[in-house]
Amino acid sequence: MLALRKGAAVEGLALYEIDEPVVPEGWALVEVLKASICGTDVHIYEWNEWARNRMRPPVTVGHEFVGRVASVNRGIGRVAPGDIVSAESHIVCHVCDMCRRNLYHVCRNTRIIGVDIDGAFAEYIAIPEENLVKLPPSVPLEAGSVLEPFGNAVHTVQSVDVRGKRVVVTGVGPIGLMAIPVAKALGASEVIATDLSDYRLALAEQVGADLTVNVRSEDPVTLVSAKGGADVVLEMSGSEVALNQGLDMLVPGGQMAILGLPGKRVSIDLSNQVVMKGISIHGIAGRRLWETWELAVALVSSGKVDLRRVVTHQFEMKDFEKGFQTMMSGQSGKVVLNIR
Amino acid sequence: MLALRKGAAVEGLALYEIDEPVVPEGWALVEVLKASICGTDVHIYEWNEWARNRMRPPVTVGHEFVGRVASVNRGIGRVAPGDIVSAESHIVCHVCDMCRRNLYHVCRNTRIIGVDIDGAFAEYIAIPEENLVKLPPSVPLEAGSVLEPFGNAVHTVQSVDVRGKRVVVTGVGPIGLMAIPVAKALGASEVIATDLSDYRLALAEQVGADLTVNVRSEDPVTLVSAKGGADVVLEMSGSEVALNQGLDMLVPGGQMAILGLPGKRVSIDLSNQVVMKGISIHGIAGRRLWETWELAVALVSSGKVDLRRVVTHQFEMKDFEKGFQTMMSGQSGKVVLNIR
Amino acid sequence: MLALRKGAAVEGLALYEIDEPVVPEGWALVEVLKASICGTDVHIYEWNEWARNRMRPPVTVGHEFVGRVASVNRGIGRVAPGDIVSAESHIVCHVCDMCRRNLYHVCRNTRIIGVDIDGAFAEYIAIPEENLVKLPPSVPLEAGSVLEPFGNAVHTVQSVDVRGKRVVVTGVGPIGLMAIPVAKALGASEVIATDLSDYRLALAEQVGADLTVNVRSEDPVTLVSAKGGADVVLEMSGSEVALNQGLDMLVPGGQMAILGLPGKRVSIDLSNQVVMKGISIHGIAGRRLWETWELAVALVSSGKVDLRRVVTHQFEMKDFEKGFQTMMSGQSGKVVLNIR
Amino acid sequence: MLALRKGAAVEGLALYEIDEPVVPEGWALVEVLKASICGTDVHIYEWNEWARNRMRPPVTVGHEFVGRVASVNRGIGRVAPGDIVSAESHIVCHVCDMCRRNLYHVCRNTRIIGVDIDGAFAEYIAIPEENLVKLPPSVPLEAGSVLEPFGNAVHTVQSVDVRGKRVVVTGVGPIGLMAIPVAKALGASEVIATDLSDYRLALAEQVGADLTVNVRSEDPVTLVSAKGGADVVLEMSGSEVALNQGLDMLVPGGQMAILGLPGKRVSIDLSNQVVMKGISIHGIAGRRLWETWELAVALVSSGKVDLRRVVTHQFEMKDFEKGFQTMMSGQSGKVVLNIR
Repeated sequence: MLALRKGAAVEGLALYEIDEPVVPEGWALVEVLKASICGTDVHIYEWNEWARNRMRPPVTVGHEFVGRVASVNRGIGRVAPGDIVSAESHIVCHVCDMCRRNLYHVCRNTRIIGVDIDGAFAEYIAIPEENLVKLPPSVPLEAGSVLEPFGNAVHTVQSVDVRGKRVVVTGVGPIGLMAIPVAKALGASEVIATDLSDYRLALAEQVGADLTVNVRSEDPVTLVSAKGGADVVLEMSGSEVALNQGLDMLVPGGQMAILGLPGKRVSIDLSNQVVMKGISIHGIAGRRLWETWELAVALVSSGKVDLRRVVTHQFEMKDFEKGFQTMMSGQSGKVVLNIR
Repeated sequence: MLALRKGAAVEGLALYEIDEPVVPEGWALVEVLKASICGTDVHIYEWNEWARNRMRPPVTVGHEFVGRVASVNRGIGRVAPGDIVSAESHIVCHVCDMCRRNLYHVCRNTRIIGVDIDGAFAEYIAIPEENLVKLPPSVPLEAGSVLEPFGNAVHTVQSVDVRGKRVVVTGVGPIGLMAIPVAKALGASEVIATDLSDYRLALAEQVGADLTVNVRSEDPVTLVSAKGGADVVLEMSGSEVALNQGLDMLVPGGQMAILGLPGKRVSIDLSNQVVMKGISIHGIAGRRLWETWELAVALVSSGKVDLRRVVTHQFEMKDFEKGFQTMMSGQSGKVVLNIR
Repeated sequence: MLALRKGAAVEGLALYEIDEPVVPEGWALVEVLKASICGTDVHIYEWNEWARNRMRPPVTVGHEFVGRVASVNRGIGRVAPGDIVSAESHIVCHVCDMCRRNLYHVCRNTRIIGVDIDGAFAEYIAIPEENLVKLPPSVPLEAGSVLEPFGNAVHTVQSVDVRGKRVVVTGVGPIGLMAIPVAKALGASEVIATDLSDYRLALAEQVGADLTVNVRSEDPVTLVSAKGGADVVLEMSGSEVALNQGLDMLVPGGQMAILGLPGKRVSIDLSNQVVMKGISIHGIAGRRLWETWELAVALVSSGKVDLRRVVTHQFEMKDFEKGFQTMMSGQSGKVVLNIR
Repeated sequence: MLALRKGAAVEGLALYEIDEPVVPEGWALVEVLKASICGTDVHIYEWNEWARNRMRPPVTVGHEFVGRVASVNRGIGRVAPGDIVSAESHIVCHVCDMCRRNLYHVCRNTRIIGVDIDGAFAEYIAIPEENLVKLPPSVPLEAGSVLEPFGNAVHTVQSVDVRGKRVVVTGVGPIGLMAIPVAKALGASEVIATDLSDYRLALAEQVGADLTVNVRSEDPVTLVSAKGGADVVLEMSGSEVALNQGLDMLVPGGQMAILGLPGKRVSIDLSNQVVMKGISIHGIAGRRLWETWELAVALVSSGKVDLRRVVTHQFEMKDFEKGFQTMMSGQSGKVVLNIR
């Protein structure tokens, strides 16, 4: 079969013809239909420091996908051949203290498809059956291919209380974008998006932001404070500046959920920004297994969130270089590769 | 009557003979029995930058006290003359958006006795009746005099879930000390205290810490991690080092509550310490009105927490200089002034 | 001024010319624009047992209204003359143990306008300023007049977690009707309404129910169970049959919120319906002060819920008999009296 | 090996010599040291209606035990031969919708050891490794043998907020008894126990009840209401009378957790006892996997709860008839069989 792989410890990726994966007991074989490119995949492509430390090529890349179940090896009855499925990318151990607390998203022994084991940029993927989530027909394939990162957005929003609240999303890359309709669907009365890119802010408006602010030209703290402040900030940029702006615009007793990953240490005014204001901050890792998946599928299948709006580009697998270039350009929402 | 006041915008405090306070409608006049010295009072004594910006002398200082109700001016029936009472130090507006959310502890128009209006280091104090909390006879007067800062400790612990958890208190000044028996009383299975001072760590042991760590001689992160990590960290030191150690020792999915106020900006590794570990952080301001007071009084009156153990020194009001020197020495728990 | 009153302890209501109300300190005088008829008002009209035990005529009836502030007597600055306002109908004491727990909705000394003191079916009403909620211009007057009962619906839904859930509303009288768009606005993926009346079920569809079930012709337990069961049931009927059906259709671990008030004791199979299924049940009284009001206004002013759809009839005050007859017919949503 | 079994569909149990159990993949073989008799075992002994409908003899009975791991068949590394363990009695499917919500305690396909498959009144038991909980040496064997029912008590208490609260336990059979020290350990300021049996109330006092009430001689509603009412009621009796008394004594906004299983339908005054008081009720099934086990072991191993006090009788396995007679007499706490 054809697979897009990190073949050696150098920059770039390449297509290889390899054998179909072996399917262990309790695992399923899934025919991949569409798979989307994550920022992590870009790091792997670029072979940055994190990737060099973490990966051991050769590995098939890709961890966001939708596919059709081909077979199950002594399964548990969750899926059957022919089912359309998306999948959780983290294979958890069920044994560590975190798993025993049902905090699977921070399992101490987690393995990630497309990073630690072969992933989804391939005609077939082998994956534990428990990781599969069967999709109802009302979920478009494009939506199915981005359910994994959508789960990050859902997890972020579900960790705070947005009901009737003014919510500010700082940074509207793909996951920030997806957080906007989630916040609206769960009851936010107003969603404001901030970014440096007019392209992304235009996308934010299309997916439902009530107001967008380009922080190059306007001070978001002044603007939001004039409205009464942010009840909730969803920090999606990884920017130290945005983090501080978010803390400054929060009302006392406000909540911040942080998914953005700064590349280095950040400085904050803990006393004035957090302690004396009685702020709560939630670091968001992965997705809740399986509560986030349940909510994510419910939001999409009920039509409350239309994920096709965040898929701005689709390419054939053979044109993967274009896909990666598009992702790196910053001029995109989610970029999907059509595997079949 | 006699009152200990910041008479002018200079260092130090002095005793003055002044008129008894006027008691507005809905307020009570309370004969002060004991009052304790807070770190804030030390800042006022020293006339540091915060104090210079906030206060307008002359003002009677002191906001932690126990007293006996002398009279109530058209009251609401919460207290009667002769009742022994402690009091919330913040007078809230009931009108702002935070008060309307029952987040009185972050009221936008709060006024603090002993800072913004005349306080408790005096023979009498006038205070809104709603701020008074009647104490049952089972609460010793020493305990009553420190219920306000004890409320800070209770608020910190009640903001996280300590049931069956390993809890680390970083910094055992008076409030950190008081948090130890609270955590134990609410179900923590193990409480570890860290500090730079052996004197304070000895006090920590006396009030129930299962283990104490002087961070000058031992690395608390190594030690706590070897035990499996901290489920909960209560940051009470205001130290950037302790903050980072606390984040490092937390288990994934762990919780931190922060009461300590760093004097300047702090630097953290947000990605690795907070986001990817799925940590929650709660800034703690004041006390929940009135849930914290209810819990605080219940803990003390039921005998679950004996606050006399944290009162290490008592002085007559005329000897207030000794009281402040003791507080500044770092060799004390709570220091109480006997007003009568 | 003109006022619709229970003038004596007999059936019916009548219009009287009376003096404008006296306005105590801290209270406001509000010119009533529209007021809606509650089931409680019908009980008062009919002079049923509850009314006979509770009320002491003469009393001006009515507790759901929208109006314009005429004056405030030594106010707290929440409203100013000319402001359009709705109001909480319960005047709470702020002194009892429940108020001190911020559980104002179950204040032990609550007084209700239109029941315990003069109410809103009059040209003017006197009411504590703290009870007033200023409405933004985006809230239509019809919506403003039914915000109080809408708050019951909001309180019911906000007491459970409907995010991505299948929600069944058993009984779609006016408050059940209003709960439907609230559940949708806060993230329910599917809302099913049950009732005995096709008229009401048609209204339920108009306000957003995904499915309606007339329990005369279809067994709701069978139907909902076939879909996988109800995650949440909102019991709005006061019917013992509906209560039992709701418990039967709940999934294990499911939640029920109950606003409906059965007229007599009810029988349930506690072991099988509640304990062994791990069900949670929440009794809903009044509205959370003031969190429910904040959320209610946010839902309406943001356009997430259009309350005009539940106002099916409007009458002039002088035609109040028609209004009460319409309410008693069961063929109505909310019935509004135009006072001016 | 020797096993106490329901050999046929008739009253009573008998000792049999049978083969050691076969150990499937992922399961462990455990040498049983002590096992305790549950009310369910009594039902099985008596062969009541529930037992007749549920069980298919022959089955080895018993589901509460402590033992030593003999071997593990292709395990996951949670336990090793020689480890002292207790065990969750429910074997869950991990596949149903409830398991996927981490609500394992209400798994739709659960199987119970000693009921659906061979249990613990035997020299050896085979059980999935994931069901085993390794005990630290600080847990006495008697305590280990009753950790399963103790988990019911812990689950009940952890489902409500007892911090600083007045808690009433209605019914102090073995699980009610165990709930008393749990409530105290998690911060209850006062625990009141009610029952019909002076023997049990004496035990309640020994394990920490602040007050005991024999409802034959005193009206518990009057008594508790005079103290200000119950903040929390833990219903452990299964009695309709106790249920109603518990609801009547609750303060507005109070919480009830129900573990007791009435044998038939019960009648309550839903309007006045639940809805208008804003009460929350939680049905309690089994134990949270694995949060309850973590908390249960923490409470016992830290010395906060001494379970030896609730074990009133121990018998050799051959004297099982005496054990069952003691359980049926009502004059016992937990009754333990020494298997080895």
